[in-house]
Amino acid sequence: MTWYGAVEMGGTKTDLAAGTTPEDLTEPERIPTTDPDETLSKVFEFFTRHPVTAIGVASFGPLNLDRASPRYGTIRFTPKPGWSGVRLHERLSEGLGVPVTIDTDVNGAALGEGRWGAGQGMTDFVYVTVGTGIGAGIMIRGKLIGGERHPETGHIAVRRHPDDRHAGSCPYHGDCLEGMASGPALEARFGRPATWPGAAEVLDLAIHYLAQGMVDIVYTVAPERIIIGGGVSRLPGFHERLRDRVGALLGGYPKDPDLELLISMPGLDGRSGLAGALLLAASGAPR
Amino acid sequence: MTWYGAVEMGGTKTDLAAGTTPEDLTEPERIPTTDPDETLSKVFEFFTRHPVTAIGVASFGPLNLDRASPRYGTIRFTPKPGWSGVRLHERLSEGLGVPVTIDTDVNGAALGEGRWGAGQGMTDFVYVTVGTGIGAGIMIRGKLIGGERHPETGHIAVRRHPDDRHAGSCPYHGDCLEGMASGPALEARFGRPATWPGAAEVLDLAIHYLAQGMVDIVYTVAPERIIIGGGVSRLPGFHERLRDRVGALLGGYPKDPDLELLISMPGLDGRSGLAGALLLAASGAPR
Repeated sequence: MTWYGAVEMGGTKTDLAAGTTPEDLTEPERIPTTDPDETLSKVFEFFTRHPVTAIGVASFGPLNLDRASPRYGTIRFTPKPGWSGVRLHERLSEGLGVPVTIDTDVNGAALGEGRWGAGQGMTDFVYVTVGTGIGAGIMIRGKLIGGERHPETGHIAVRRHPDDRHAGSCPYHGDCLEGMASGPALEARFGRPATWPGAAEVLDLAIHYLAQGMVDIVYTVAPERIIIGGGVSRLPGFHERLRDRVGALLGGYPKDPDLELLISMPGLDGRSGLAGALLLAASGAPR
Repeated sequence: MTWYGAVEMGGTKTDLAAGTTPEDLTEPERIPTTDPDETLSKVFEFFTRHPVTAIGVASFGPLNLDRASPRYGTIRFTPKPGWSGVRLHERLSEGLGVPVTIDTDVNGAALGEGRWGAGQGMTDFVYVTVGTGIGAGIMIRGKLIGGERHPETGHIAVRRHPDDRHAGSCPYHGDCLEGMASGPALEARFGRPATWPGAAEVLDLAIHYLAQGMVDIVYTVAPERIIIGGGVSRLPGFHERLRDRVGALLGGYPKDPDLELLISMPGLDGRSGLAGALLLAASGAPR
């Protein structure tokens, strides 16, 4: 019987589960993403308790995604301490003895949403996460962008909100999109979690910056839909506000955008990445 | 014998030629792009003098590029007077009696550069034109982005140069990339052609805005190369200055970008679009 392992590695936490579809997926086990040795040993331990025939990993990056490369599945230079150069694919496949298939966290979520969620039946759509970081998985003609390089859409430049004095939290650019609108960037202005209830000022700032990012994506890759998930997207009214602001920024070009179609919530609420990891696992499983 | 027609329709001028490759292409005949009836009658007249077996058109847009649609090859809503809703594919194929294949001007140029120019051997690259307008043809895994919708990368938002008071020339957005850095937008500040010799201030402004656009493209679609053509790109020192500024804006992420590889001049100087139109013609020719 095929039974797949799903790993979603985020910058602060890693979710582990097993199954074949979002319906039969085990309740995800959450571990903190600490240093590589400690984190991977907990992954090994989980899959000792839950034997699987193949594993899919949707991970933070940047990653080498070129399956023909000897460095496939290696984390490239990252500000996350200890993780630059970690050969994730090699360590997981040797440690677990089953085929391991790796993609970025957002590519994984895009795969999951395309199969079972808000991207079903679409060949050109984007999954955006707004959480610890901001990133996009971009599906074009049914395939994800990414090989030796992959999108880092969180780092596009944005125009500052006139009342916003935050220097920006990105170690490379300061006030790029991720530097201004990721969860930690929003928290840095208010000294409390970005998702506290009734955070109207947080939502205003988030929408100001994220709508610019969505418009950039619309004009650059012309998707049918952008699905936005991640912690910040759970602020009450987030998608409605974003839809209105994107419409205003498009400014009538294209003439009559279908904003209901364009800006969407995920269909797999919180499970998009794990669902995609199952698909990654299946793609690498023995036949 | 196969002999193809190549049409490159720009916002102000249209180039017409016939051949099979950039080498045997006839000297292009240039006509002004006026109203649809007058412009198309000159296209018909040209191909009466130069009979061909199929025609490729690389045109300004926005266009419907979905070949399965009854509105394939129709110009969508455009500020160019008289051209909104023109059924370019239908009028050209009925008027000329040969197969006609249509794509955007920048998609055409990307095809030409991919086959014979600076994109040879690459599956993921972008062709950007900076002329009357700004646009991008984006090749991902060997195929151009575009169907019912296509990229309109010229309309992304940019950060203003601190000394720049220009309101912006875009009828939709004012100071988007195209509104600030297209040829007409640059000329509007100085009251003379953007390409006059020694126009250091023009180059400074163009680079300020265009480098932001290139960085957005890098972070969104992760291309191996961006090829930049069009009138403004002929300013002396343009590509070197752009390369330096893009490197500065990337800010070390990715860590060691190969800027010589990334930012390139066209290989088919001024013929990229016509070369692509030949490939479009060949793709639609009877076998």
